[in-house]
Amino acid sequence: MTKLTSSMPCVLLTGFAPFAGESINPSWQTVSKLDDSLIAKHRVITLELPCEFHRSLAILYQAIEQHHPVLVLCVGQAGGRCEISIERIAINIDDARIDDNAGNQPIDTPVIANAPAAYFTNLPIKRMLLALHQAEIPAAISNTAGTYVCNHVMYGLLHHINQHEPQINGGFVHVPYLPSQAVHHNGAPSMSEDTLLSALKVMINEAISAKQDIKVAAGTTH
Amino acid sequence: MTKLTSSMPCVLLTGFAPFAGESINPSWQTVSKLDDSLIAKHRVITLELPCEFHRSLAILYQAIEQHHPVLVLCVGQAGGRCEISIERIAINIDDARIDDNAGNQPIDTPVIANAPAAYFTNLPIKRMLLALHQAEIPAAISNTAGTYVCNHVMYGLLHHINQHEPQINGGFVHVPYLPSQAVHHNGAPSMSEDTLLSALKVMINEAISAKQDIKVAAGTTH
Amino acid sequence: MTKLTSSMPCVLLTGFAPFAGESINPSWQTVSKLDDSLIAKHRVITLELPCEFHRSLAILYQAIEQHHPVLVLCVGQAGGRCEISIERIAINIDDARIDDNAGNQPIDTPVIANAPAAYFTNLPIKRMLLALHQAEIPAAISNTAGTYVCNHVMYGLLHHINQHEPQINGGFVHVPYLPSQAVHHNGAPSMSEDTLLSALKVMINEAISAKQDIKVAAGTTH
Amino acid sequence: MTKLTSSMPCVLLTGFAPFAGESINPSWQTVSKLDDSLIAKHRVITLELPCEFHRSLAILYQAIEQHHPVLVLCVGQAGGRCEISIERIAINIDDARIDDNAGNQPIDTPVIANAPAAYFTNLPIKRMLLALHQAEIPAAISNTAGTYVCNHVMYGLLHHINQHEPQINGGFVHVPYLPSQAVHHNGAPSMSEDTLLSALKVMINEAISAKQDIKVAAGTTH
Repeated sequence: MTKLTSSMPCVLLTGFAPFAGESINPSWQTVSKLDDSLIAKHRVITLELPCEFHRSLAILYQAIEQHHPVLVLCVGQAGGRCEISIERIAINIDDARIDDNAGNQPIDTPVIANAPAAYFTNLPIKRMLLALHQAEIPAAISNTAGTYVCNHVMYGLLHHINQHEPQINGGFVHVPYLPSQAVHHNGAPSMSEDTLLSALKVMINEAISAKQDIKVAAGTTH
Repeated sequence: MTKLTSSMPCVLLTGFAPFAGESINPSWQTVSKLDDSLIAKHRVITLELPCEFHRSLAILYQAIEQHHPVLVLCVGQAGGRCEISIERIAINIDDARIDDNAGNQPIDTPVIANAPAAYFTNLPIKRMLLALHQAEIPAAISNTAGTYVCNHVMYGLLHHINQHEPQINGGFVHVPYLPSQAVHHNGAPSMSEDTLLSALKVMINEAISAKQDIKVAAGTTH
Repeated sequence: MTKLTSSMPCVLLTGFAPFAGESINPSWQTVSKLDDSLIAKHRVITLELPCEFHRSLAILYQAIEQHHPVLVLCVGQAGGRCEISIERIAINIDDARIDDNAGNQPIDTPVIANAPAAYFTNLPIKRMLLALHQAEIPAAISNTAGTYVCNHVMYGLLHHINQHEPQINGGFVHVPYLPSQAVHHNGAPSMSEDTLLSALKVMINEAISAKQDIKVAAGTTH
Repeated sequence: MTKLTSSMPCVLLTGFAPFAGESINPSWQTVSKLDDSLIAKHRVITLELPCEFHRSLAILYQAIEQHHPVLVLCVGQAGGRCEISIERIAINIDDARIDDNAGNQPIDTPVIANAPAAYFTNLPIKRMLLALHQAEIPAAISNTAGTYVCNHVMYGLLHHINQHEPQINGGFVHVPYLPSQAVHHNGAPSMSEDTLLSALKVMINEAISAKQDIKVAAGTTH
């Protein structure tokens, strides 16, 4: 059996703290279960990010500097979505409909001043999508990560990668409510913790293994 | 440990065959897993009903006559719904949008001629709802089981109970797609097999144990 | 030109007062525009019903006694629905998720004690549906009018017709939010007042003219 | 009364040809009604774009060169959305789920090679949003115009503006189905032609008049 050692290549996997009145966040709830696990000969290091503009990024940058991951996958909650959403792009705007957990509500300000309007993820998102479907897990490519802390973190991550460490693969995935949350959101879809865990493993494995993405149609007409 | 014996009181639990182009039906997929299990000192007998008007009921009636269940719970697929739907009422109409599996498409004909317009279930649906919520499983009361084979079976079951065996408790529950089905229905919600199995056990246990239903608001404004 | 006279056969058309924090109700907003109009040689008499259990019915019964309508069409708001919903059936239950406008919240009590579980409308709902589609107005048959004041009024109306005046045709139609309401309900569908007015005229005309309904599939699988 | 003259400043307003089996496109259906109209002392010139990658842009560029508009507003159909969607950003990717009207299906190719990942619109989208709400028209800011011809045209327009004519204001708006289309899409929301026409006038007026956008929260958490 492969032993975990600190010299192994590692994956940095992040989830978020609860926000918007929730007592849990499905991202951290599942991400934390994979701490110190081994996927495709890579050690998984997990990290809970605060649901706060800027401080979330400072903590993420620190962890990247400390662990030198080959892959950074950030995970966040998308209450109301039915399936795993693999995000294609992050945009350089904060437009918060509600306060973050520190009471900040930036409106129409850039995530990073004087930086590009957007970054595409460099993850093999189409391969990840097909791998999820083969594992019988509902999933789709999403073309917007919103304008809140999730998009903020994804943009900040991709800016860092593009400016400083292009060898890192990085991206963002949104997950539905857990069933225990959906009970309190009349008519909201959910996904079980087991399915979410399987999904994370499938995606990490694919992101590590794939050399180049493939072209299969997974767009939207609007 | 309690041994299953044929003299034990029993629960008749039914699922449906796949329909509408699906290769599986989440109802039978989960119901079949509980065959010969023991819940609250009752033996569970399972039965797959064909997705056919009338023949489904003939088979159901035969099983009731054979097994003398104290509880009959019929389960069907509601593709597109997010949660367990506990049906409140069945109505005396067949109005098939698509053919059943035998090629029949009744339109605006009664399930049973000269019978009442509808029957309320005699299950403790509010207790079942609360028990599901306590088990952190998304669920709601539904006020329509549609006008297809599901409603047909529920109506036929309740007609039989009301006319011939009022001591039997009977009702119907709709369940979402399984994740493996939702993969083929872009954007459709799903529920895992584990969650569905837990839900069935919780509902059967509650339906057997509860002496009288409670009054908690679970209606809809339209 | 046909003159309106009190000896003409008449249609009683009702809408509801606003409820649930709304300042208007799309049903009365449009119904009131048709007061004293003439459709298919019938005079239209309109009536605003309070959004209150029981008092709504008392007022409806009084108007029926006063005007001797040949057709009673009650209209209510279904916030969140996309299209005109022609209701097929009313059920004998009140289960109020929120207080009515008088502060009452009946839970699981019958609309009328010792009365049937449900009544089907005697309107030609399939003809009305086809007529709306021919007029290019989105519409569907609905198999539940909910368990709030709308269903309460529909049940009470059909009970009266079945018990006392079977020569009257009666039924219920749910309508979406108006655009001015949807502005305050993030992401809710709406229908313009002009479209709603056209829809009411089309349905009243069809309900008056049709001798017998036709059989076209318009059911739901769940 | 102001007379239309060719020396007046002009607005270029585009709609699309029908696609995906539709016989009409709500964008051109309404846009064409405003041809040669006068809004805020600007002449409105309308143009129907083909639903084709690249050729749509060639035709748009030609019209910009010919008419020297101060404002270019492109409008497209977003079947399934409930409200007017004012697009915030266009991304440099074509990922066609279905063929365009010329049979092309680009997958994961850039709209324009070696160009930025995305452009933000320079329209005062928050002012336009508030103006629509004041006019009681349902509307929202959208953070994705999809990956089909609509996004393609929006990206190409904004690329042209940013590279060559930064004095032009340009952007994109998605509109729901018309009611006549929704009749054929079971359960789809729609918006009437009158409401769409009012919306276009309100947005054009605001886009011409506003000197600078305001900051009001209109983002999404995901």
